[in-house]
Amino acid sequence: MTPRMIGLDGDDTLWESETHFVTTTAKMADLLSDWVDSDAAVERLIAAERRNLKTLGYGVKAFALSMIETAIEVSASEVDATTIQQIVEWAKELMDHPVEVIEGVREAVEGLVARWPVILVTKGDLLHQESKVAGSGLADLFTGVHIVSEKDPQTYSRILAEHGIEPREFVMVGNSMRSDVIPVVELGGRGIHIPHDLTWALEEVDGIAVPEGVSELRRLGEVAPLLESPAD
Amino acid sequence: MTPRMIGLDGDDTLWESETHFVTTTAKMADLLSDWVDSDAAVERLIAAERRNLKTLGYGVKAFALSMIETAIEVSASEVDATTIQQIVEWAKELMDHPVEVIEGVREAVEGLVARWPVILVTKGDLLHQESKVAGSGLADLFTGVHIVSEKDPQTYSRILAEHGIEPREFVMVGNSMRSDVIPVVELGGRGIHIPHDLTWALEEVDGIAVPEGVSELRRLGEVAPLLESPAD
Repeated sequence: MTPRMIGLDGDDTLWESETHFVTTTAKMADLLSDWVDSDAAVERLIAAERRNLKTLGYGVKAFALSMIETAIEVSASEVDATTIQQIVEWAKELMDHPVEVIEGVREAVEGLVARWPVILVTKGDLLHQESKVAGSGLADLFTGVHIVSEKDPQTYSRILAEHGIEPREFVMVGNSMRSDVIPVVELGGRGIHIPHDLTWALEEVDGIAVPEGVSELRRLGEVAPLLESPAD
Repeated sequence: MTPRMIGLDGDDTLWESETHFVTTTAKMADLLSDWVDSDAAVERLIAAERRNLKTLGYGVKAFALSMIETAIEVSASEVDATTIQQIVEWAKELMDHPVEVIEGVREAVEGLVARWPVILVTKGDLLHQESKVAGSGLADLFTGVHIVSEKDPQTYSRILAEHGIEPREFVMVGNSMRSDVIPVVELGGRGIHIPHDLTWALEEVDGIAVPEGVSELRRLGEVAPLLESPAD
């Protein structure tokens, strides 16, 4: 059946995000090279993010606090204040970084919007996500913008109810199998996966069964043709 | 005229918030007493919060990063990693602190909800505000919960449009003249101010003209009688 609403993810589906975190993580590993090698630094940072996720949530500010904790931890409290201040500055740079809309995305969203109502469903820091939506120049194309703290079935269910859409009438498109595809399929909707070269460790789905019938595309521009193809 | 919708603020209107920040600020001043006296520590922290507001937004995580910056700044980078880690721990405690609904608030909200649709309009960290709404036990009473990054006229205008309510049909109730009352009055709505003993420096309105005709009440329980009084 043809959908009644399309949902799009933001970070690493419409605009670059993880690349900035990866760059900062590399600088962080460099900063800690007196104490640990690069792989260990990254591993400890990911462990801190995972541990802090429930309390601090997603986004740059949580990432900054996890970086600071990691620096203190791996240096056995030897790290100095100047280094900590450097981490705080990186957080501000991440918050203020200009939005880089992925090539072809604007045309692809316009193509979708011409056929179906399209909503944005994105998670992370409220202020930062709002400024990314605004900076993307795409805001006016969306029927709704939903910035959420977690992308689980309950969240999608609430959003769809707001729009008066049944899960089976909804298609969610994004780069995260865990956040964009699986919870929507669980509700009875359809997920389309568009992998990004970079995926944050906490979005990886090792050991989670990928549901059957999920389409995997390379570019957002392939979504409309797929949904309109008679074979689909 | 009788309103068609009531809006309530969260922090320091429905539940305690500023008191936790004040307690942490006092501990922070104590931590920095080797370098500055208490008044100066508080002043420098407020200055950092003000400077970082546009980049980092509201909420505990932004507060934590401003505390860390302040510690580094007032100590001329002498502060050690153990002290910084202490600040990070305080941030986590603030995030995890149980919600303390202000006395009489539950009954007052029930009284309002029996007469009008009531929405919550609160700003700050998305995850933290969501967990406070959940923890308050009040969530089911609201027609809508709006967690926003800034409470300005545009934000209120968008929320009212979502509910199909004209500004003149709307009454907003809260402890912040700057965030709860003035922007709503500016749109043509009504504001009711319920001051709290503690108000965050960045919510103070020194030099801003308080609009005429704003009611000032002592308790949320006084709102329904005021709106229903024939003289009103």
